[in-house]
Amino acid sequence: MQEIKIIEVKESVFADNNADAERLRAQLKEEKTFLLNVMSSPGSGKTTTLLALAKELEGKLRWAVMEADIDSVVDAETMKTAGVEAIQIHTGGMCHLDADMTRQGLSQLDRSELDLVVLENVGNLVCPAEFDTGSVKNMTILSVPEGDDKPLKYPLMYETCDLLVINKIDVLDYFDFDCEKVVEYAKRRNPNIEVLFVSARTGEGIPELAGWIFRQVTAWNV
Amino acid sequence: MQEIKIIEVKESVFADNNADAERLRAQLKEEKTFLLNVMSSPGSGKTTTLLALAKELEGKLRWAVMEADIDSVVDAETMKTAGVEAIQIHTGGMCHLDADMTRQGLSQLDRSELDLVVLENVGNLVCPAEFDTGSVKNMTILSVPEGDDKPLKYPLMYETCDLLVINKIDVLDYFDFDCEKVVEYAKRRNPNIEVLFVSARTGEGIPELAGWIFRQVTAWNV
Repeated sequence: MQEIKIIEVKESVFADNNADAERLRAQLKEEKTFLLNVMSSPGSGKTTTLLALAKELEGKLRWAVMEADIDSVVDAETMKTAGVEAIQIHTGGMCHLDADMTRQGLSQLDRSELDLVVLENVGNLVCPAEFDTGSVKNMTILSVPEGDDKPLKYPLMYETCDLLVINKIDVLDYFDFDCEKVVEYAKRRNPNIEVLFVSARTGEGIPELAGWIFRQVTAWNV
Repeated sequence: MQEIKIIEVKESVFADNNADAERLRAQLKEEKTFLLNVMSSPGSGKTTTLLALAKELEGKLRWAVMEADIDSVVDAETMKTAGVEAIQIHTGGMCHLDADMTRQGLSQLDRSELDLVVLENVGNLVCPAEFDTGSVKNMTILSVPEGDDKPLKYPLMYETCDLLVINKIDVLDYFDFDCEKVVEYAKRRNPNIEVLFVSARTGEGIPELAGWIFRQVTAWNV
């Protein structure tokens, strides 16, 4: 078993999380570090998608992952085993991360050596969308087995995200999931949202996702 | 399209939700109404499982469903189309229901005509587990595509539930999901949790689930 650094983060002392998030983002801009906040339901494949990205990003970007969970070190272990720098953030029961909790995680990483930090938020379609983490971009993953109606039920998640990744497209044949409808529902919430279709398991669509991330990071870290 | 009764519930005025939940439970006991709180991630198949149960429970129990969501009436419409009495509860962005919000929903149903009310909670593995709704029993659904590690990551959900339903077992062949491990992980959180395996789509295991519910309801409504 890997030795995993576990950060027990505390709830923010700042009353105004939005202002705090702006401060963190300004600091990251100065440091030339891109922070990507990845959100989804439990089990949509956040960790598996990051694993698939590891191969694509190797040699192109220097990156690390902050795995947020209420408990367990399962995800950070998985990333470390794959050779990606990873720390585990424990939220102590909290259902989301705010900007200061994110900062507490970031303080454990040597950002001068990193172009990109990915925050894998707590698996939850509701609360994480309500708190700006200080990220530069937000991405949400929806997996085919969850159904195409999720943008109708969890509006804020889709409103706050720049990219929607539809994962597990390798099992499309086994589920009633309408790829056109999900895009229509998501755009109804957020006309500017971009949508990519991937299978983290087979690797389909992962080069395109890596390309999207690479373009965002290089545009930010100028 | 069905005409759906939408209840916009407000956050509780009661500081002590646990005490309020006990009051609601005592009232339901007196009225001989069983309240089952069903929780899961988004897309685990709560509504589909309830639809599958409708056929099994027909003529055995008089029941209604309260569908809680942040937005949309998708689920209540689905239940009504299947001939089950259903109302939609809108939480106004809230990630969970507390006892008083549940009471606001219940007030819209004629409980003298009902043996069982099922509350389909907001799709979320974190926050709903923190709030006692006044339910007699709690049930959580975990679907095969979500992965067998969820009890490790969302401990409170499994601690507070009496029954764990593993859904979508018809797609077990397409996912890495260990049926023995998930039981072990769940029992680690809660040694008393019961576990049933079902496929809401094919109907496998649904008679056993209906049997479990029927036994709970008849034991309560004496």
